[in-house]
Formats: sequence, structure tokens, C-alpha cells
Amino acid sequence: MSLINPDDDLALLRRLGDRAREVALPFFRAAPDVLNKDAEGFDPVTEADKLTEQCLRALIGEHCPDDSILGEEQAPKVGTSGRTWILDPIDGTRAFIAGLPSWCVLIALCDETGPILSLIDQPFTAERFIGIAGYGQQACWYERQGVERQIRVRGVDTLSQAIGTTTDPYLFRGAEYAQFEAIRAAARLIRYGLDAYGYAAMALGGIDFVVETGLSPWDHAALAPIVRGAGGVFTDWQGRDLVQDGRVIAAASPALHRALMAHLQ
Amino acid sequence: MSLINPDDDLALLRRLGDRAREVALPFFRAAPDVLNKDAEGFDPVTEADKLTEQCLRALIGEHCPDDSILGEEQAPKVGTSGRTWILDPIDGTRAFIAGLPSWCVLIALCDETGPILSLIDQPFTAERFIGIAGYGQQACWYERQGVERQIRVRGVDTLSQAIGTTTDPYLFRGAEYAQFEAIRAAARLIRYGLDAYGYAAMALGGIDFVVETGLSPWDHAALAPIVRGAGGVFTDWQGRDLVQDGRVIAAASPALHRALMAHLQ
Repeated sequence: MSLINPDDDLALLRRLGDRAREVALPFFRAAPDVLNKDAEGFDPVTEADKLTEQCLRALIGEHCPDDSILGEEQAPKVGTSGRTWILDPIDGTRAFIAGLPSWCVLIALCDETGPILSLIDQPFTAERFIGIAGYGQQACWYERQGVERQIRVRGVDTLSQAIGTTTDPYLFRGAEYAQFEAIRAAARLIRYGLDAYGYAAMALGGIDFVVETGLSPWDHAALAPIVRGAGGVFTDWQGRDLVQDGRVIAAASPALHRALMAHLQ
Repeated sequence: MSLINPDDDLALLRRLGDRAREVALPFFRAAPDVLNKDAEGFDPVTEADKLTEQCLRALIGEHCPDDSILGEEQAPKVGTSGRTWILDPIDGTRAFIAGLPSWCVLIALCDETGPILSLIDQPFTAERFIGIAGYGQQACWYERQGVERQIRVRGVDTLSQAIGTTTDPYLFRGAEYAQFEAIRAAARLIRYGLDAYGYAAMALGGIDFVVETGLSPWDHAALAPIVRGAGGVFTDWQGRDLVQDGRVIAAASPALHRALMAHLQ
């Protein structure tokens, strides 16, 4: 029996995305005095994060009471179905705080092999990315303003032609920093500050690679089905499909992935 | 006689913004094969830039035939009115190429003292910022989805509380890089990759300062009225109102501006 039924689970994923958008967006750029009657200690990101995760957990619990749930804001829920939802209600909290529309809602559904279905949603720009990689399917869709279309990475094979991104170059430590510097010197262009939106932009064909370190499971679980669904490669720095140490390479082609791996080992 | 009539000129500025949005947006994320029948040498940014500037120049010429025009893509037009329009049809071409919605249309109207009225427009997110600083007025408006409201910078006075931004830390050279490193170490948070959108985010109260170098007149002319109109300070690194060497400080408060100046001298 299949643990994941793409049709049913995609429908639920979209409902979860709708709910998250509804709950999180009112907190974005909202004046603290509108949201909070207390003068002290209010953090709208934490509030938005907590409330959004709570609503997502409730909706998952209603439809799939036996599934496990791993989220950034609450203790893991251990289920019996063999399926796990991994949630980051607001990825890119720094962008959120700064009023920049690159934060995203991340939702992934995993079986025992890893993430299979996922959603990246940007509520302010009303952009949604849905990815599937597994159960005989590999695709990525972009939805905005009621229009949905399948999207693919751009076919770039060499670093000198590639546009890359990483959220913050100063997150690379020690040897990692030197490795990234070499990639930066070899690439056509590097952009910063995007968090999960960078992987989504890769699925749209604008960005060709992402290299990052220090990611938590909720930061990266939703990225793999999007990148792979759009025809890209998503692994850890050793080339393993299942990322366990928070170090991620996403590349628009196998050749570009090999070129990045050569710099990161 | 006043060179600038805020009411009439604001109306024209909005029409110019509408026209630019109409012309530039279809090029964003457009597949090259949709836009171009030739396989060789097509650069959608250059095309979008040139066509947008051409349309803006035509509209200005129609309404204000005696004004000067300075734009990134064509030779300056020298007029006789004492008024100058400064245009950057697509600021943030790197973001544009990468499919990231932080590029902006920039339009400024200057008299002999510098920029007085300006517009920053992001066509994809449909966000528009209008600023005025001069002729007895100082204000900044944010427009989206038919709703317009006045906006102001956040009142942050110390670097340790401030969220700053710069487009690319690697654009600072030599001593500049060390000066920026000291600012980065002292600030609460730094974001990257925003070009003019960072100054607009400052007017919205999410970003507290921007420090940049190497800007051309069309990169920065439209920034001053937005930042000043929203209650911020906008100068060169020596604290002069008229930026002539492409080095810019924008700060949410005079105290924060002094703290930044102390690092940049």
C-alpha cells in the first residue's frame, strides 16, 4: 500500500497552504500597536509563527490523525502512519521582520525515504510552488492569480554561466567560507537574502544553484520536491539525497551539481 | 516662479509610473523564445530597459518639452526649463535577470538644488512609493491595490537595534570594506540584494538604514525624496545632501545617521 496518495495529499497540501496564507499574512508589516495591546515583549514573528503552525497542525490532525508532525515551533507529534509532515510556518523570519516579501510558508510530506510532496508559498506576492518527486511522478507547478503552470529549471551546465544564491555569505564558517568564495569567484553572479524563495526562483528558471549550510529539517524538507520536481538536483554537500547535516546543494543540472560538489569537498 | 508644481508634477509622475509598469513587466520572467525569434544575442533586460526609457522620454517630452532628461540607456537631453528628470527604467537588473521581484522603476524630478519628487515602483508586487521633499512639503506615500497611505520610517536611534541593508557586501573596496564590516558587526541584522527596494522598505519602517557605494545618478536620484519624505536622512558619506561620488547613507533617524557617519569617515 502506498503511504502517499499524490491526488488526495496534493489537495490537502493546497488547503494547508491556503490556511497558512490566511493566518500569517495579516502579521506582515503590521504595526505592533495594532496587533498588541501590551507594550512589552511583543514579537510579531514568533506570534505569527506559532499561530500559523497551530492552525496547520489542527488541519493535519483533522484529516490525517495518525501522521507525525515536525515543526519549528512545537514539540514533535509522533504518529503511527509512517508519514511525517514537516512545517516551517515562516521561513525567512529576518526578511519578515524587515518587511521584505521573500519569507515563505514551507510544508513537506515525507514517507520513510524522505520528502515526496511539498509547498513553498509566498503570501504577499501570492505565489505558490508545489513539487512532487516520488511515487512515479516528478513535477513542479507555479500558481498565481488563479493561473497554474508547470515550471522547470534552466538548463545551465557550467558555473561561469550560472546565477547562484545563498542567504547570507557570513553563515559559512572556516573552510566553508573559503569554499564559497571559490564558487562566488567562478559563478556568473551571486544573489543574497532569499531563504527558501531562492529555491523557488530556481524552479522558475531564474536562479541556477543554491549552496547553504546550517539548515534545520524544517528549513530544507520542502525544498527537495520543488527542486527535483522542476528537474534540478538536490543533495547534501556529499551528494547524498537525504540531507542530515543541514548542508545543501541545489543545482539546475547534473553537470552544474558536479561542478559545485568539486568545490565543496 | 516655482520650477516644480507638486500637484501637477505628482500626477505626471504617476502616469509615468503606470506607463513604465505596463512596458517593463511583460519582460520579467518571460521565456526568451517568446520574446525573441532570433536565437543569438538577446538580452531581455537591455530590451526592457531601452523600451521603457524610450516610452518615458516620449511621455515627458509630450508634457514638458523644455525639461532635461538624464537616463541610463540614452544620451542626456538638455532642456531649458531648469528641471531635470532622472530615469532608471530597471534598477536591479541582476535581480530582474534572476527572476526576483526586487527590481524597480526609478523616476526623479529635480530642480537646480537636486531631486524633489520621486517614484519607486515594483511592477510585479504592484507596490508604488511616491516621495516629496521640498517646496514646503515632506511626505512619502505607499500605494498598492488601489489603496494609498502615508508611510514613515521607524524611530530607531542606535545601530545595535537597527536592521540595515546593502545590495552586495563585495561592492565595498579596500577601506570601505573594513568600514562596512564594522557596521555589520555593530548592527542588529543586515540584509542583502535589494537595490532601490531596500530604501523603499526603509520608508515602510522595516529597514532602518542603507549604506552603499558606486551608485550612478540614475541609481540614487529617486531615493532621496522617498527617504526624506518618510522622515529619514539621506546624504553622501560626508553628510552632504547632494550625492556626487555615488556613496550613500540613508538612515531612519539623525542619531542613527551620526552613528553610521562615525564608521564611514
